Amino acid sequence: MNNPQLNKHGELQHLLSTEGLPSRILYDILDRASAFVDGDGSREIKKVPLLHGKSVFNIFFENSTRTRTTFEIAAKRLSADVVNLNIGSSSTSKGETLLDTVDNLCAMHADMFIVRHAQSGAAHLIAKHVAPEIHVINAGDGRHAHPTQALLDMYTIRHYKKEFHNLRVAIVGDILHSRVARSQIHALTTLGVPEVRVIAPKTLLPSHVEQLGVRVFHDMAQGLRDVDVVLMLRLQNERMQGAALPSAQEYFKYYGLTQEKLALAKADAIVMHPGPMNRGIEIDSSVADGGQSVILPQVTFGIAVRMAVMSMLAGDK
Amino acid sequence: MNNPQLNKHGELQHLLSTEGLPSRILYDILDRASAFVDGDGSREIKKVPLLHGKSVFNIFFENSTRTRTTFEIAAKRLSADVVNLNIGSSSTSKGETLLDTVDNLCAMHADMFIVRHAQSGAAHLIAKHVAPEIHVINAGDGRHAHPTQALLDMYTIRHYKKEFHNLRVAIVGDILHSRVARSQIHALTTLGVPEVRVIAPKTLLPSHVEQLGVRVFHDMAQGLRDVDVVLMLRLQNERMQGAALPSAQEYFKYYGLTQEKLALAKADAIVMHPGPMNRGIEIDSSVADGGQSVILPQVTFGIAVRMAVMSMLAGDK
Amino acid sequence: MNNPQLNKHGELQHLLSTEGLPSRILYDILDRASAFVDGDGSREIKKVPLLHGKSVFNIFFENSTRTRTTFEIAAKRLSADVVNLNIGSSSTSKGETLLDTVDNLCAMHADMFIVRHAQSGAAHLIAKHVAPEIHVINAGDGRHAHPTQALLDMYTIRHYKKEFHNLRVAIVGDILHSRVARSQIHALTTLGVPEVRVIAPKTLLPSHVEQLGVRVFHDMAQGLRDVDVVLMLRLQNERMQGAALPSAQEYFKYYGLTQEKLALAKADAIVMHPGPMNRGIEIDSSVADGGQSVILPQVTFGIAVRMAVMSMLAGDK
Repeated sequence: MNNPQLNKHGELQHLLSTEGLPSRILYDILDRASAFVDGDGSREIKKVPLLHGKSVFNIFFENSTRTRTTFEIAAKRLSADVVNLNIGSSSTSKGETLLDTVDNLCAMHADMFIVRHAQSGAAHLIAKHVAPEIHVINAGDGRHAHPTQALLDMYTIRHYKKEFHNLRVAIVGDILHSRVARSQIHALTTLGVPEVRVIAPKTLLPSHVEQLGVRVFHDMAQGLRDVDVVLMLRLQNERMQGAALPSAQEYFKYYGLTQEKLALAKADAIVMHPGPMNRGIEIDSSVADGGQSVILPQVTFGIAVRMAVMSMLAGDK
Repeated sequence: MNNPQLNKHGELQHLLSTEGLPSRILYDILDRASAFVDGDGSREIKKVPLLHGKSVFNIFFENSTRTRTTFEIAAKRLSADVVNLNIGSSSTSKGETLLDTVDNLCAMHADMFIVRHAQSGAAHLIAKHVAPEIHVINAGDGRHAHPTQALLDMYTIRHYKKEFHNLRVAIVGDILHSRVARSQIHALTTLGVPEVRVIAPKTLLPSHVEQLGVRVFHDMAQGLRDVDVVLMLRLQNERMQGAALPSAQEYFKYYGLTQEKLALAKADAIVMHPGPMNRGIEIDSSVADGGQSVILPQVTFGIAVRMAVMSMLAGDK
Repeated sequence: MNNPQLNKHGELQHLLSTEGLPSRILYDILDRASAFVDGDGSREIKKVPLLHGKSVFNIFFENSTRTRTTFEIAAKRLSADVVNLNIGSSSTSKGETLLDTVDNLCAMHADMFIVRHAQSGAAHLIAKHVAPEIHVINAGDGRHAHPTQALLDMYTIRHYKKEFHNLRVAIVGDILHSRVARSQIHALTTLGVPEVRVIAPKTLLPSHVEQLGVRVFHDMAQGLRDVDVVLMLRLQNERMQGAALPSAQEYFKYYGLTQEKLALAKADAIVMHPGPMNRGIEIDSSVADGGQSVILPQVTFGIAVRMAVMSMLAGDK
């Protein structure tokens, strides 16, 4: 099977998953993103005309104001025209099929779709369906992938750690249901991180997760030892009520990141979280707001990474 | 009664209905729209500054993501500032009258209103109320009119058939409740189509529909014979549950467009549909996706037609 | 306590309340707004590039299409990129704290927040929290303040009456629950209006309201006598059903503004209302639409005032 994410010249055609992306593409995205961030990662992303006259459609079948906003801001900073469609309340409720909706938007001369969908594979389905001049970015599909989140995480790691080849990285939390974790694992291994760990209770781990090239830990004390990077995951509210977990308090006790547990990692370890955080459940406030947290820089880099991906896909060649 | 759609110079002031519009205005819109479509009707509608600095308000009292999106895209390609107001959830729920809401938006220096309303005549009411420098486009009012849909249909017919004076056109489906059908009939007769047919069960036809200048058929086999254009209508979900129809299956059997029925039309007949389609109810998928279907080009032309109307109304003279 | 609305140079840093703003700042806003209004207060606010490349976030924790629209239009006329967030349906529902939401938006390089919140003090809380390069405008917080409404009212009064120092101004209606009234009183007294009256039933007045420097009336006939300006307030629907009022009819009889009652004011008195109006409850239609009403000019000036505030806060110095 050829890679649906690359065109015949080996260039990025769609961004659907970090799985199967060659490291040269990942580095290209990270390098390009750095052009949209100033020296110290703080102020002044200037508006640039790279997507002037292009139409970007945020088609969100699953509501996510935060993710939609990051793409909207990135597209507007590239001077694109952005149209938001909350499809839950739209034509699909009138009996139209997903692909008919997509065909219609294509006929309006869309240049790019940002797709969020509760079903794994929705973005792939759309990408396979559209004409070659239209580009698809997966903004999260079911439990499958959330590649821009993983890429901004890679950007953040590289920003603080410079290299990937000498790192120990731990991903902590609900690996089983997390598209973020899956995308992080593929990106980390592709970029050459020698040791990727996952730390979770057995009920929140996919079976055969080791086959992804990770080391499995059920205990924070062991799993966090000597790591350079701690990637926390959000615990979805619905899991807290489900059978997979005894209680949020219990979860915090064993898997919540506290200063005490973080002390087991390297002294200069950084702490990341995709947001929105459940303070006091997966992460203690003293850690979230502490000196090792790079959670807010992640958000800043996220805009730059999305600008990079969008301009690679739809910018003039 | 003078025509509220034309100013004293006979130019388009508002677009409320295809009824009463002279053919020279219709042709002017179609000609102008062709400037926004490239040679083969595919890619590259460039962004143009015709409405730069103008404020276009989409005021939708009735939800329609698809129609709102087409106007939003058209306005943005003309460089207008677009504000979307979903009025159902807004001031009218606070007890404000429709005209107070409109007065307020006018006072914000609106240049154009795109109005969708469940009540027939709402766009007329607003057009009569506003100051002369403000323009109103009816994006669908009750059962009354949906003129931009009819105009894009005319554009599509002209694109494929070149002339109107030698055509047989059939409109099929729920004529009774359809503002699209009403607007199509007026546009077709004004443009000189010699034979306009409507095909529907008696329960879905307005009384005295012949007075609009159409031939009435209750049977697809007779009605489709030798036509050049088939305009399918969407069957609203609420009709399917109502007393007007026995069942969706029954409807499809008698009035659904299949390859077999379409074979009765001319060999080069084109098939159109305003969307969103109910596949398997008013139209079979093999027809919708078949070689005679021009349903997606309709959408493309729809953007161009809306750009044409908007720039005629509010562009610098 | 130093004023959180001013920076160390005494310039406007945030607009949170008219309380505590020096008169020179108020005049600066009004003067600057006049540059965005043409001679006769009617057409042609041209689009200007003062906020080009800046990101303005409308974060509305309380729904208000009208107020959100005025800020959106003002920001777009300044060429800003505008992102609307209806936070009720967003991350806070996912358990994220208000300040985490704000931190995230700051990390996306927001330049300005327009904040609407049901809780008094929300905008202050955000303003104290953000970095110095980010500016906050309070678009209404609980019963506390709605400063841009009061400023547009001041602009309107000055437009029609030229000076403040010789005026009698009456505010009529539900003073108790009104953030608009509170902001108007502070602005009027700061600008030197010698006599500010409030007219309301006892149940709709805050205790010790006289301490704000106003004269209290419970009777329209006395309160309106010889005033230059009548500021009507909107009666919230929820009050009409509550214990504070016998009925809407009763309210209209005693406190609704009719031509008859208005005749007690000066012959050239102007009538204002923040909208949306309840016709027949707090104001009679003949007054709302009459020659002394300046309710629609208020809306026009409101855009200009918001452009003025935004450009003072975030425009290039």
